[in-house]
Amino acid sequence: MARIIIDKNSSRKEVIIAKAASLFREKGYKAASMRDLAESVGVEAASLYNHIKSKTELLHEICFGVANRFMHKIEEIEGEKILAIEKVEALIRFHIDEMIHHYEEVYVSDREWKHLSDPYLLNFQNQRRMYRKRFAAIIENGILQKNIKPIDATTAVLIILHAIGGIESWHRSRQKISAEALTANMITILVGGIAVNVKV
Amino acid sequence: MARIIIDKNSSRKEVIIAKAASLFREKGYKAASMRDLAESVGVEAASLYNHIKSKTELLHEICFGVANRFMHKIEEIEGEKILAIEKVEALIRFHIDEMIHHYEEVYVSDREWKHLSDPYLLNFQNQRRMYRKRFAAIIENGILQKNIKPIDATTAVLIILHAIGGIESWHRSRQKISAEALTANMITILVGGIAVNVKV
Repeated sequence: MARIIIDKNSSRKEVIIAKAASLFREKGYKAASMRDLAESVGVEAASLYNHIKSKTELLHEICFGVANRFMHKIEEIEGEKILAIEKVEALIRFHIDEMIHHYEEVYVSDREWKHLSDPYLLNFQNQRRMYRKRFAAIIENGILQKNIKPIDATTAVLIILHAIGGIESWHRSRQKISAEALTANMITILVGGIAVNVKV
Repeated sequence: MARIIIDKNSSRKEVIIAKAASLFREKGYKAASMRDLAESVGVEAASLYNHIKSKTELLHEICFGVANRFMHKIEEIEGEKILAIEKVEALIRFHIDEMIHHYEEVYVSDREWKHLSDPYLLNFQNQRRMYRKRFAAIIENGILQKNIKPIDATTAVLIILHAIGGIESWHRSRQKISAEALTANMITILVGGIAVNVKV
């Protein structure tokens, strides 16, 4: 019985976090109020506090939730016995998938993390920096393996991440191609842009 | 004599616009005040109004200044007798150059145009949409000419423009590669990503 109540609470909390991500994306973290959130969840503002302590906690949950997923994924990919260019492709696919299917949370974590406060802010920034370094290290490996062109790895990561960030406009566009076609095109251009002699 | 005074006024206005771009980028258009601008130019707030009518006029000058430069460039490139893939490369080089050398204005025009009001807002949005369509049309031409891969042209434009937007992080990064190396890497990845069998 206690178990069920815990599960219920936890899923209610997840709903609140998802609604908060949607609200923060739309209005910006600063402008969004707990009252707006309560309205969007369909409860009284006071009852939100049974599940979460503050607006800050929500931002924290969103940003670190996303950061953790990316960190787990890159660790998993690093451990696979495949070519570096294939690791990059797997990582790009994961990024695209996250931008398509967990858009609001990824967007908020990418744009609104500046409103975190220390020690979380510093921790988050370090995680971002580390993630990009590990991504660049895979690319550098591919350059050594000669399946990736001799490019500046940091610039390649910057290009790849920003290009994928462009899925934001895809979400907003009226006549969109399918998620599958979008993914296929992005892989063709981005993996094709860095790969040596690999058909993609 | 009158000529000289006009030139003086015009260059003072240019200085004000450049300072405004820098201020709007840093603080955001909404948060920036005419008082901040006066301080940054080094004059009394009242004397700004000898040169410009309002904060709105400044945003207008910045956004349409940038939009006009891009429109002129794409027109020029469309008229050249070169392959479509070469046109795309020329356009990408222009975008990169603008993001490197006219960063503040391009950044503001790209992020803060939402604060324009009609009829300027609608006009600006139409210009953006037209520009992207013309860019996509060049790519579609390249697909027909078989020097560009059979990709979705709209997605390619989205990827290219967002990737170049990433130069924002290059500006902020502590250990940056040179502007030339950045440009060369971007061309390798982006042109290489869409080109068929063309060494870049």
